[in-house]
Amino acid sequence: MADDIPESHPRYRSLLARRLLTEAAADGLLAESALIAHGRGEAFDYLLGERTTASAHRAIGEATARLLAAGSPVLSVNGNTVALAADQMLGCAAVLGCPIEVNIYYRTPERMSALLVRLAERKLAVMRADPPDGWAEGSEAWQAAVLAVPLLGDAADGRIPGLDGPRAACSRDGIMQADVIFVPLEDGDRCEALIAAGKQVLVVDLNPLSRTARAATVTIVDELTRVLEELLPLLLAGAGSPDMEWDNDAILLDALDEIRSGAA
Amino acid sequence: MADDIPESHPRYRSLLARRLLTEAAADGLLAESALIAHGRGEAFDYLLGERTTASAHRAIGEATARLLAAGSPVLSVNGNTVALAADQMLGCAAVLGCPIEVNIYYRTPERMSALLVRLAERKLAVMRADPPDGWAEGSEAWQAAVLAVPLLGDAADGRIPGLDGPRAACSRDGIMQADVIFVPLEDGDRCEALIAAGKQVLVVDLNPLSRTARAATVTIVDELTRVLEELLPLLLAGAGSPDMEWDNDAILLDALDEIRSGAA
Repeated sequence: MADDIPESHPRYRSLLARRLLTEAAADGLLAESALIAHGRGEAFDYLLGERTTASAHRAIGEATARLLAAGSPVLSVNGNTVALAADQMLGCAAVLGCPIEVNIYYRTPERMSALLVRLAERKLAVMRADPPDGWAEGSEAWQAAVLAVPLLGDAADGRIPGLDGPRAACSRDGIMQADVIFVPLEDGDRCEALIAAGKQVLVVDLNPLSRTARAATVTIVDELTRVLEELLPLLLAGAGSPDMEWDNDAILLDALDEIRSGAA
Repeated sequence: MADDIPESHPRYRSLLARRLLTEAAADGLLAESALIAHGRGEAFDYLLGERTTASAHRAIGEATARLLAAGSPVLSVNGNTVALAADQMLGCAAVLGCPIEVNIYYRTPERMSALLVRLAERKLAVMRADPPDGWAEGSEAWQAAVLAVPLLGDAADGRIPGLDGPRAACSRDGIMQADVIFVPLEDGDRCEALIAAGKQVLVVDLNPLSRTARAATVTIVDELTRVLEELLPLLLAGAGSPDMEWDNDAILLDALDEIRSGAA
């Protein structure tokens, strides 16, 4: 997969992401609009300088603290997240001991099952790989932790209040009962509905003006794989307490400043 | 096509463009990366306020003057341009009495023939439709003008100097012999090669920092269908002479200012 992109290429990460997404589209994992959404993100990331800004580092730290303090966290994934970062998301879920829920806006049985199969395949691969740096309990405990990650989404036995139709569907054991949801690349309607349902919603969104970015509890304005490279070690290292005075608007304003100077 | 998007929807144009592109992808007209490229454009257009700026109006006027003054103009189209604006491009070619050349970066026989078939279908539809406002010569002359538009690209009997492999291919009767090329959504390598070959290259690109935008003779930083809604009447109305002192960098700097204030 993507073997023909040399790692030394200055645009390696960007080209690899495009490759992963176009392959996922060919494999039926993505909605029609998923590639267009990725392109929008690319443009914002370009203006951000394709780096994790200081305020994004702060938001990642706050998300870490909230996930570790949560009573019942869940990681919610869509097609783009599975295509770009299935292994990293599985690693985070193993460290947190929490489920991953496939929850997609344009829900079809074919896409749901394709995504759950892909996650199950990647779960085996992550189990067999070395534990991440910072994992202190040895390989067998790592395998057990990864094996224990529930992969939810198929049942759709819960509903997100305030939404209609298939996009209201969720898992009773996942999003429905969670207090803290880490959901990269979320739709605006659903983010607002989850907030209205009293949940903490931690999002990753490269557009600081999107409805998702503005509605979320904590918005990480950054590219998903960079975020997860930082989040996993932070989850392993432990973190301080959540900041009860967290000012998410300040994060969004800072990201806008970065974009304005990036376009200078 | 796209009948279920109400024209009153505030995001009608954006949703229609997405629909046209996802349908074109399903029909095999687009390269894998085409939807991602469209998404990047969407993000820049969002920051521009989804409107034609004053400097873009100036660039459209300059492109009009250069096309009308050209000895041998050609309109070069790729998959996204055909998906979004085949009819408008055919109308412009009919007014200019010039060819349309299908010229794509990821050239395959399947995509080339799919695009040429689509253009031939749209050519019939444009012939049968009413002439555009400003066309003074009547319906029969309009039909004759549209009918006379050569659709090039299949032959690939020319080469763009300085490029290797299939992306160097072009038509001897089209790009190869043209003095002025209007090429929306062009690749950076190819734009630079066409400039190096001594041609005037008029581009439409929403990213004012792209290599295409920086290399072109005239860069219209605007969304393609808005540009063509303005270009066709201008071509019909006639225009002044090309500005031999044209400062394309000033256009790019102005677009960057607009993006910075759009992100404010």
